[in-house]
Amino acid sequence: MAKKIAIIGASGYTGAELIRLIATHPGMEIAALAANSSAGQSMAQVFPFLRHLDLPDLVTVDEVDFSAIDLAFCALPHKTSQQVIKALPKELKIVDLSADFRLQDPEAYRTWYGNDHAAVEMQGEAVYGLTEFYRDRIRTARLVAGTGCNAATGQFALRPLIAAGVIDLDEIILDMKCAVSGTGRGLRQDTLFAELSEGYHAYAVGGKHRHLGEFDQEFSALAGRPVRVQFTPHLLPANRGILSTCYLKGDAQAIHSTMEKAYADEPFVCVLPFGEPPSTHHVRGSNFVHIGVTGERIDGRAILVCVLDNLTKGSSGQAIQNANLMLGLDETEGLMMAPLFP
Amino acid sequence: MAKKIAIIGASGYTGAELIRLIATHPGMEIAALAANSSAGQSMAQVFPFLRHLDLPDLVTVDEVDFSAIDLAFCALPHKTSQQVIKALPKELKIVDLSADFRLQDPEAYRTWYGNDHAAVEMQGEAVYGLTEFYRDRIRTARLVAGTGCNAATGQFALRPLIAAGVIDLDEIILDMKCAVSGTGRGLRQDTLFAELSEGYHAYAVGGKHRHLGEFDQEFSALAGRPVRVQFTPHLLPANRGILSTCYLKGDAQAIHSTMEKAYADEPFVCVLPFGEPPSTHHVRGSNFVHIGVTGERIDGRAILVCVLDNLTKGSSGQAIQNANLMLGLDETEGLMMAPLFP
Amino acid sequence: MAKKIAIIGASGYTGAELIRLIATHPGMEIAALAANSSAGQSMAQVFPFLRHLDLPDLVTVDEVDFSAIDLAFCALPHKTSQQVIKALPKELKIVDLSADFRLQDPEAYRTWYGNDHAAVEMQGEAVYGLTEFYRDRIRTARLVAGTGCNAATGQFALRPLIAAGVIDLDEIILDMKCAVSGTGRGLRQDTLFAELSEGYHAYAVGGKHRHLGEFDQEFSALAGRPVRVQFTPHLLPANRGILSTCYLKGDAQAIHSTMEKAYADEPFVCVLPFGEPPSTHHVRGSNFVHIGVTGERIDGRAILVCVLDNLTKGSSGQAIQNANLMLGLDETEGLMMAPLFP
Amino acid sequence: MAKKIAIIGASGYTGAELIRLIATHPGMEIAALAANSSAGQSMAQVFPFLRHLDLPDLVTVDEVDFSAIDLAFCALPHKTSQQVIKALPKELKIVDLSADFRLQDPEAYRTWYGNDHAAVEMQGEAVYGLTEFYRDRIRTARLVAGTGCNAATGQFALRPLIAAGVIDLDEIILDMKCAVSGTGRGLRQDTLFAELSEGYHAYAVGGKHRHLGEFDQEFSALAGRPVRVQFTPHLLPANRGILSTCYLKGDAQAIHSTMEKAYADEPFVCVLPFGEPPSTHHVRGSNFVHIGVTGERIDGRAILVCVLDNLTKGSSGQAIQNANLMLGLDETEGLMMAPLFP
Repeated sequence: MAKKIAIIGASGYTGAELIRLIATHPGMEIAALAANSSAGQSMAQVFPFLRHLDLPDLVTVDEVDFSAIDLAFCALPHKTSQQVIKALPKELKIVDLSADFRLQDPEAYRTWYGNDHAAVEMQGEAVYGLTEFYRDRIRTARLVAGTGCNAATGQFALRPLIAAGVIDLDEIILDMKCAVSGTGRGLRQDTLFAELSEGYHAYAVGGKHRHLGEFDQEFSALAGRPVRVQFTPHLLPANRGILSTCYLKGDAQAIHSTMEKAYADEPFVCVLPFGEPPSTHHVRGSNFVHIGVTGERIDGRAILVCVLDNLTKGSSGQAIQNANLMLGLDETEGLMMAPLFP
Repeated sequence: MAKKIAIIGASGYTGAELIRLIATHPGMEIAALAANSSAGQSMAQVFPFLRHLDLPDLVTVDEVDFSAIDLAFCALPHKTSQQVIKALPKELKIVDLSADFRLQDPEAYRTWYGNDHAAVEMQGEAVYGLTEFYRDRIRTARLVAGTGCNAATGQFALRPLIAAGVIDLDEIILDMKCAVSGTGRGLRQDTLFAELSEGYHAYAVGGKHRHLGEFDQEFSALAGRPVRVQFTPHLLPANRGILSTCYLKGDAQAIHSTMEKAYADEPFVCVLPFGEPPSTHHVRGSNFVHIGVTGERIDGRAILVCVLDNLTKGSSGQAIQNANLMLGLDETEGLMMAPLFP
Repeated sequence: MAKKIAIIGASGYTGAELIRLIATHPGMEIAALAANSSAGQSMAQVFPFLRHLDLPDLVTVDEVDFSAIDLAFCALPHKTSQQVIKALPKELKIVDLSADFRLQDPEAYRTWYGNDHAAVEMQGEAVYGLTEFYRDRIRTARLVAGTGCNAATGQFALRPLIAAGVIDLDEIILDMKCAVSGTGRGLRQDTLFAELSEGYHAYAVGGKHRHLGEFDQEFSALAGRPVRVQFTPHLLPANRGILSTCYLKGDAQAIHSTMEKAYADEPFVCVLPFGEPPSTHHVRGSNFVHIGVTGERIDGRAILVCVLDNLTKGSSGQAIQNANLMLGLDETEGLMMAPLFP
Repeated sequence: MAKKIAIIGASGYTGAELIRLIATHPGMEIAALAANSSAGQSMAQVFPFLRHLDLPDLVTVDEVDFSAIDLAFCALPHKTSQQVIKALPKELKIVDLSADFRLQDPEAYRTWYGNDHAAVEMQGEAVYGLTEFYRDRIRTARLVAGTGCNAATGQFALRPLIAAGVIDLDEIILDMKCAVSGTGRGLRQDTLFAELSEGYHAYAVGGKHRHLGEFDQEFSALAGRPVRVQFTPHLLPANRGILSTCYLKGDAQAIHSTMEKAYADEPFVCVLPFGEPPSTHHVRGSNFVHIGVTGERIDGRAILVCVLDNLTKGSSGQAIQNANLMLGLDETEGLMMAPLFP
């Protein structure tokens, strides 16, 4: 029997993406959709592209009967998420897609997000949701904190290399090219079509992007010593896709074979033949990650490019992958759809 | 057991779209992929977005063992298609996505395509592939001729109205807005990004587009007298989607209720509440059709807008819908994926 | 000596476009820039693309010394514009880009805009700003009301035909395809990149768009009897450009020669050879209008396609063309820049 | 009296961009347009956006009477360019936009372009066309070799820093994001709208892009020792614009003040306030370069972002800037148009 799912924060892009994926997921069934600001509306009003589905209308979080729910996805903005989750039943399985439970250290949280955490006691409980690396803990977790989309892209690129010690840990640069859906459905001047189409720019330059908190936490833990990477995001005129160009010091062939070995059995991560660069075009709308490694004309350097779809593998697809594990389903269930091209 | 499928012409967009859809179709399995010009290559080389699938390499048509095939999709350019299909085993079930078998009258074919048909004897055998209207004949057909993407959009808009006699048959105008993937993967200057992005234009203006042959054939048969519509296509900077704005003379409410009644039981066709206009954004990558009807300030006129995804419902999705029927599968199998938004 | 120009409402797209054009206009010089909501800011902050210019900072309207100004452009939202203009010095030359003074009949204004006009006495004084047709009156006008961008496109298409009596006045359909900058810089969900890119939809369907008020006024005056056209706008994923496909009843060749004759001496309006359709790509960023006329396979009908850049010829370019006349400058001064392609 | 200009290779994007700019250049007049493959056609046929101009029809190079020409722009593909230029009158002033005369060392040319140079004797004569740094030599040059668009972007970013010795010369990384018009108007699958829109990828990864030849030549000469940078281009879904994110080791404030000083008197190069990142949106269609410098959270590092329009400042605008000098005109003449936004 299909598991009963609630989605809290169903009126944003990641909420809608969860519904898109669950629509053809044989093991899940949407039992409740909450979005306080849109309560009372049908999903067809909020997202007409979901009009063909027989979905419950949107309600407030308070109106959801969580006793009938097997797992809740929380797709709220950060800060709101921690407050809502704090008030949910303590035994409810939750996958949080916000940034609120990604950082385990309250101090680090305060540094990057500028406020005290409202649910400090749950920060420790939460398991970091990068499935490929936290699979065992996720399987038994009650609360999983979905990895940020940029943070996921960078970690798929670097974790095996840091673990294997094949790159210089003090010389890691990630230049990211990010599609606009990652900024959400909120109204902003810089994400208007007329302001974004046909051009691009860097933002949060110089180490200001909050996903650096995740990089610091994860890479340092992995290396057993502080690791700080450089990470510059760029906003691009596209809906979906993150491409991270990683500038590394190390032997390119060793880097490639380390990656191939690390992901050999992963259903969603594909390491391309040496020298072949990946494209965001080839993962759009899917849960796949493509990684390419290339040598550099300057000896001892390599370039690794990693791509994924920020809304799918970078957010809602990853969340379902985690939920599959938490619910005892097959990890890939409902996630093997091919990318959309063109 | 899954039906064995061959795709002839697998190196174009409609071929790739067939593979995308079959990848998650529980009742079909790809047994052979043919594309003469790319024979010897893997699909990952031709379409890297299909890299995660375990697919047979491309071969020439001659190399396919059709005795092991339950149904072949033919996704070749027109003129080529008729010659290839003519040479295939006579009992093989075929869904042709080209224009070659859509027109039943050899004379009409010659008028619109400028050459004699190479397989005249099969023109009569072919069943027109607009599933919603030819369901019974498709179920037992051996050769089904997929409807053109513009022709499908216009027919979903107009067939119920012509059948019901609620519009003036001599005053029908279809203004279509077409995405670029409908022009195929061939190299053309006007479909280069730099030539198409950020602008738009009309083409085949004044009654020159070949899909008019389909409109003439189908609408005249339906009305029992000659019907000639006006149809102007426009090329737009988008990958997928056709939007047809239909200018009609008739009572708007009667038009709306005729449409609602006609499609009440159709799983893929959705008639929106009166006055609500649809958007191609809401059907991208799906097999759905959205139709909206609005009144006009000038009495006795109505505007009907119909949208679908040219590569899915307008081509490969429709083809699979037909194949499902021909193979005794459920008509909607493998086709209920939600649209991709954003 | 260059004329001193003030721009009121300099923080929107039409305000910025005025500055772009005046930047290389030999006969004009920007003396004051007002925008109440952004007062105190530099233009480089509001529009960094104007950073290279030596411009006055933004001030409030009240802070402008209009005694030193030769002509003011008012690029405010409608309703605001009439109140601001009402309070300006009575002898100041003004080109208003809003909708506020386009309709001469207070009743028609109320019908389309839903409120009483705050400056009824000036409605009669204002000259309609479609330069090519009101040149003589504009030359001596004090207040010119810029034509709406859709209204301009439709009038370039139809005025000569209505005047010449070569088309059926009761059977005129304009299907318009509009770029997004026409909706302005305000924050709206439907103009976010993620909501607009890669798709399109109709809006204000059935005779609801306010520019119909201009069509009714102008076409009826021209014909000497009521003329009501059908006009359906569509929002497209592009920054600049309007394309109007006009479905007409009349002789196509007569229509073409009427257009050729009408615009033979116009520097900005180009009628293409018979049968050649224009493209918005070919007028982007310029003050040009391209018009194409094609026959239809149905006798007695014709299709006319008209394109222009909504921000230039449809708004700020037209405004400068009018200002040139009002200031005794050459009509084409500062406006002969070539389109930007690609 | 206006200088008589010939454009050889007028059927490509850089040729068309030259015409766009010369159209409003008071000191230049187009006397001849050559394009062997399109000879006999009018420019309105090849580029309808230039339809308003009174231009000579396209002829073959042989048909041009160069005795009446003051300066010729050569906008041909590389390899073709050197052969055509070799055959031109020896006293004719030429600005070449191809790659053929950028590298002074025949050996370096052979390495990067794979063939022997057909006009070795002229390689030494040619002056490198980065105006801001070769102004004096360009003024008296007969043959100027236009800088590549990526090479220009990188040099505006780095030359002052290398000259001033404020960055580590062995640790320079340029991650470039390039619009598609830089690849030209030729037919390629990867530049089709459907293949490029909505996605992005790296290419020529690892030090394979030919513009590295220019970087090596120029930076090494400047530093007085070999300098080799890393440079990874990415193809983005936009028509115009290059953005280079430069990862540098050095003091960010020193880098910023070095840049400010270097460009203080340059009319086309604008160094933004410290910490402000530039955008390609703000230079589209113009001859401006915007540069931003930001500090990094890792001490001793800085990020510099440089943007320009590849067809204007990166190619045809730069060419006209050079031609202005060679013809004794004001360097900025015809080039001060504001960018097009949005």
